[in-house]
Amino acid sequence: MIIKVVNPNTSADMTALVERSAKAVAAAGTTVHAVSPAMGPESIESHYDEALSVPGLLAEVAAGERSGVDGYVVACFGDPGLDAARELAAGPVVGIAEAAMRTAAYLGRGFTVVTTLSRTRGRAWELAERYGMRGLCRGVHACDIPVLELDPGALDLVTAACARAVEEDDADAVVLGCAGMTDWAAPIASAIGVPVVDGVQSAVLTVQALVEMGLRTGKRDEFAVPPPKRYAGLLRDFGH
Amino acid sequence: MIIKVVNPNTSADMTALVERSAKAVAAAGTTVHAVSPAMGPESIESHYDEALSVPGLLAEVAAGERSGVDGYVVACFGDPGLDAARELAAGPVVGIAEAAMRTAAYLGRGFTVVTTLSRTRGRAWELAERYGMRGLCRGVHACDIPVLELDPGALDLVTAACARAVEEDDADAVVLGCAGMTDWAAPIASAIGVPVVDGVQSAVLTVQALVEMGLRTGKRDEFAVPPPKRYAGLLRDFGH
Amino acid sequence: MIIKVVNPNTSADMTALVERSAKAVAAAGTTVHAVSPAMGPESIESHYDEALSVPGLLAEVAAGERSGVDGYVVACFGDPGLDAARELAAGPVVGIAEAAMRTAAYLGRGFTVVTTLSRTRGRAWELAERYGMRGLCRGVHACDIPVLELDPGALDLVTAACARAVEEDDADAVVLGCAGMTDWAAPIASAIGVPVVDGVQSAVLTVQALVEMGLRTGKRDEFAVPPPKRYAGLLRDFGH
Amino acid sequence: MIIKVVNPNTSADMTALVERSAKAVAAAGTTVHAVSPAMGPESIESHYDEALSVPGLLAEVAAGERSGVDGYVVACFGDPGLDAARELAAGPVVGIAEAAMRTAAYLGRGFTVVTTLSRTRGRAWELAERYGMRGLCRGVHACDIPVLELDPGALDLVTAACARAVEEDDADAVVLGCAGMTDWAAPIASAIGVPVVDGVQSAVLTVQALVEMGLRTGKRDEFAVPPPKRYAGLLRDFGH
Amino acid sequence: MIIKVVNPNTSADMTALVERSAKAVAAAGTTVHAVSPAMGPESIESHYDEALSVPGLLAEVAAGERSGVDGYVVACFGDPGLDAARELAAGPVVGIAEAAMRTAAYLGRGFTVVTTLSRTRGRAWELAERYGMRGLCRGVHACDIPVLELDPGALDLVTAACARAVEEDDADAVVLGCAGMTDWAAPIASAIGVPVVDGVQSAVLTVQALVEMGLRTGKRDEFAVPPPKRYAGLLRDFGH
Amino acid sequence: MIIKVVNPNTSADMTALVERSAKAVAAAGTTVHAVSPAMGPESIESHYDEALSVPGLLAEVAAGERSGVDGYVVACFGDPGLDAARELAAGPVVGIAEAAMRTAAYLGRGFTVVTTLSRTRGRAWELAERYGMRGLCRGVHACDIPVLELDPGALDLVTAACARAVEEDDADAVVLGCAGMTDWAAPIASAIGVPVVDGVQSAVLTVQALVEMGLRTGKRDEFAVPPPKRYAGLLRDFGH
Repeated sequence: MIIKVVNPNTSADMTALVERSAKAVAAAGTTVHAVSPAMGPESIESHYDEALSVPGLLAEVAAGERSGVDGYVVACFGDPGLDAARELAAGPVVGIAEAAMRTAAYLGRGFTVVTTLSRTRGRAWELAERYGMRGLCRGVHACDIPVLELDPGALDLVTAACARAVEEDDADAVVLGCAGMTDWAAPIASAIGVPVVDGVQSAVLTVQALVEMGLRTGKRDEFAVPPPKRYAGLLRDFGH
Repeated sequence: MIIKVVNPNTSADMTALVERSAKAVAAAGTTVHAVSPAMGPESIESHYDEALSVPGLLAEVAAGERSGVDGYVVACFGDPGLDAARELAAGPVVGIAEAAMRTAAYLGRGFTVVTTLSRTRGRAWELAERYGMRGLCRGVHACDIPVLELDPGALDLVTAACARAVEEDDADAVVLGCAGMTDWAAPIASAIGVPVVDGVQSAVLTVQALVEMGLRTGKRDEFAVPPPKRYAGLLRDFGH
Repeated sequence: MIIKVVNPNTSADMTALVERSAKAVAAAGTTVHAVSPAMGPESIESHYDEALSVPGLLAEVAAGERSGVDGYVVACFGDPGLDAARELAAGPVVGIAEAAMRTAAYLGRGFTVVTTLSRTRGRAWELAERYGMRGLCRGVHACDIPVLELDPGALDLVTAACARAVEEDDADAVVLGCAGMTDWAAPIASAIGVPVVDGVQSAVLTVQALVEMGLRTGKRDEFAVPPPKRYAGLLRDFGH
Repeated sequence: MIIKVVNPNTSADMTALVERSAKAVAAAGTTVHAVSPAMGPESIESHYDEALSVPGLLAEVAAGERSGVDGYVVACFGDPGLDAARELAAGPVVGIAEAAMRTAAYLGRGFTVVTTLSRTRGRAWELAERYGMRGLCRGVHACDIPVLELDPGALDLVTAACARAVEEDDADAVVLGCAGMTDWAAPIASAIGVPVVDGVQSAVLTVQALVEMGLRTGKRDEFAVPPPKRYAGLLRDFGH
Repeated sequence: MIIKVVNPNTSADMTALVERSAKAVAAAGTTVHAVSPAMGPESIESHYDEALSVPGLLAEVAAGERSGVDGYVVACFGDPGLDAARELAAGPVVGIAEAAMRTAAYLGRGFTVVTTLSRTRGRAWELAERYGMRGLCRGVHACDIPVLELDPGALDLVTAACARAVEEDDADAVVLGCAGMTDWAAPIASAIGVPVVDGVQSAVLTVQALVEMGLRTGKRDEFAVPPPKRYAGLLRDFGH
Repeated sequence: MIIKVVNPNTSADMTALVERSAKAVAAAGTTVHAVSPAMGPESIESHYDEALSVPGLLAEVAAGERSGVDGYVVACFGDPGLDAARELAAGPVVGIAEAAMRTAAYLGRGFTVVTTLSRTRGRAWELAERYGMRGLCRGVHACDIPVLELDPGALDLVTAACARAVEEDDADAVVLGCAGMTDWAAPIASAIGVPVVDGVQSAVLTVQALVEMGLRTGKRDEFAVPPPKRYAGLLRDFGH
């Protein structure tokens, strides 16, 4: 089984981090590789960044389809391009926000999200609504650290933000709101005594489970392969 | 006052149609021009098309900012790139689905949407939810005519679809679910005796009203101008 | 185009204020006149006041129908008698709470309402629910100033209440919850750096847009003209 | 204990019917009297009728307060003036739609409403939303019989409408949507084998229970007695 | 009329307290007796306790059916086994959480719940959702006193918790979240000047009203008598 | 890793079926064993059956805790006793309805549920609500075959019911609403061309993923181990 993890930003360090984290939980027979698109923003911290990351992400999915990939993870907490990728791919596609929230839903009555910049909270709430999590998601909190500054020195700050969020929201679990925090779930959980969910690992194991059960996106109507058509300009490479 | 209407697909005929319709309702002192992006799909009939239309759309907004535009209309019923455009623009940005639904909300207790292909209904429902219209939007119906085949010969079919939708959903009004239907609101309303809302005109008048009142997107946090950063590859032109 | 603005209370000063504000945004070809009913409370600060304002309001709509009015604004933030007025009028009828909330919805992910007395907050929430704004309306705050005491000296207090509400609710915009605040949107927006929406101007421009597009209340069933019948007692004048 | 039942329309026959039905279930120590207001419509079949019934209804509540009434029933399925009456009265006030829906909620997972004219269904849905019944209320059906034509000959038609509604909505119970059907709950329940809830009896027993427990409307803020003020014109009699 | 009140825990003192409170409001012709099951936990303070209380509760309902009981009250605020009891009983069955919340709904726009241990708040919220009370229930607060320690000395603490909850949630009424608080509604209401609802009395009067009106659980499908089958092991006595 | 699957009914054939299905997807290093409780109903087709299955289920969880089980599956589509089991177990506990619905959520915009008897549909809807699936779950359909008659001869009937449900609900996926259908997902999916989700396999892979990631139920408050207390009567064995 081959799972392709697409980090929609172009930061190679973050892609390497995501790959390590994904491989740490994948089963013996599962091959995981992580990639960054050739085009797009170095980090995703606005609707604008998210929108500009999608064509590169879709190019990676299109390439994956030609090379026998069984399923995909979109490794950015805004779940950019998820519906488009589901149209394009034959196998399942899972975003890390969706996977993290649905995973946290198994752990109690409510969870809280701790993310990077405050301006991204609106998107997290929008996804929570879309995924049916308005009742389960009790809060979305920013730690005000940019994505590319999530270095080891920031762990203490994020841990403290998680502890505050749990108290404030009376939450049973924490969801980490950025792929760049993927290796912090265990240390933060140890520090605060509350389960902490990372979306990258959650999404990899979800894709692995879906493929194992032979499940893929339903293709009856909305998510069928997009109708072929002409694409003008720089984007012509995306025609299929 | 200058309003720029961006038709996010690249079909010049449709852009011309949209411009005529927009100008028909704009006030004497309002200049309206409609454009298509230099890049993107010829029509938007999937999440994939929508995603690929957004970079071109944002380039048009960025150009508009440099040339003194007061407000923008996104003239595709999927409201692609709306949040990103709101970050980029100083003035208001309105999508035609949002404008059509909010306008229809003034006309009774519930409306029904008639759109093109059945695969686009999911997006219309998603927007209805996002805009708080789950109670008001009673149904989304497809007439199964592709966007580029909405020629005069299709008017009777769409009129019949609207009549059926009104009966089935017990609706007080109809929302037309495609910019390509923009000049059909009046003839269909005459034929079926129910108010029919076109998003293009609704959005133009909404932007005009917002500018008249001095209202623009709130820039405190989520919709502030995106933080500057490096964009790799073909998309480098979108840096700002 | 003739738009009649009904201030449902009987305070002539407030009606004059509302008319000035409405005229300031109406298009060149639009005639706006504002009236108070001959009967009703001097201000509306309870469900009781609201209920007693409705017969007078409906009498004004009935008079408007006989004199060729194209559309109506109900200029009280409780939107009293809105559904009844929609039955009575051939053209569109818009309440200032509905117009203000729908207008604010275009300006970001969430707005906050600042109103007069705390006892009126329940009605504002009820309207927010009714209009599909439960997700968008993040709070309703009272400044504890009675309607008839909204004189210039109160502007600073209301401005401060708006600033607090924005912080507390993390809002992108403010909605002013009383027609008596109609000329304060601009100064408050300047003071706090956040868009501030006034319902009177929003409603006038909404009615103007609806009439421009030829849209009116759907008359298929619920909002058809009320069935004629006998009315006993003092209210006999309301028969039609 | 004195319970005053206000039938907000002016049809004496219907008031007599409502009184008989109310007395049939009241406890030995409970005095029930039913009244019609001196002013208002002969029947309530539109938002317009409902609005015009409220001043007369409130006059009856004001009179009741002066004569020692312990609690009130508003006996029209649109629950007109309920919030205003709650401000005015020291004791509890219950509307028949609210009482019928809350009573039906005890009888299974979902109920269906059968009412008179189709144009009144919108108000029934609005009340269902307001009362938290969107999940429990599965449908609102009209039998297309005007209120004043609910004579014995119509029972078979209404029974058939109830049977159809139960099947169509897969409902566990039926709510009768008009005070004029108050004596039909038992015969319809017998005929169709499903519990049928009448709002008049439900509301009388609810008020009786509230008074028995010493419960009344909370008067902290929203439902405190309305602030005194001047009322102009014909409505001056409503000042208090 | 015979109403059987089942206190699902096995504490005889609490059952006696519940019976006294129930009898204080029942009508002259209504016989009320309260019982504890022969098996089950001494108090209910977890999902585990609740689950283990249900077989004993159902045995009491089965016994009641054999002895001519007209309706039942389940006197624990978690409403354990309510749906199963409704299948088993011919007459109505009402839980005290459901009755208290629906009763409080008549008293204003929102109520707050004050319960025992914080761990039980999740269940209270779940019930509020299930009963359509998400809009009406503004908060659930724990006073952190175990059920069996609700002795007279605790009244002051619970009163203070109620006062705080009213302020914090801006509530019109309080719901007491434990059958063990049944005789505290009146003293707390006196102390804080806000209506306080006890579920035991609310449920008894609700059952009494339902029986008076001839209403019982709808038996068309979901709540029909359970299909007979074999039950293995210790629970064989529950076969019917 | 040891996963214990508890089939809460006492039918050994069904437990064997469930175990085969669970083992077919578990990873190489995962030990799965399925059990039936010593007490309880032979099948679960009512709220009553469900309630009586819970003590036996909890006894199995308690036994599992003493023998080093890492996580549990509750293999009945009503998810009986799920919250109580989560209190009792140190590791994760997943119900098959929750797992099936959350899994189906990854496969499109909406799914439909096909279950056994029509009387169980209410519980399925209740769970869908509880899990945030009201928007995703488009319908719950009964095939009217009792649980113990789900033999190979019934496959064609259930397949036909799934095909009808997909058309009627315009669904992207099907959820099988009974553990007894666990080996039918693949043949039905092949027959109807739509993904079909089985809860048993979904739940096993979910528990496996949670354990792999070191995630377990949050124990801060609601789901902490139940407070110790006395249990009277036959249920004394459940004390811990």
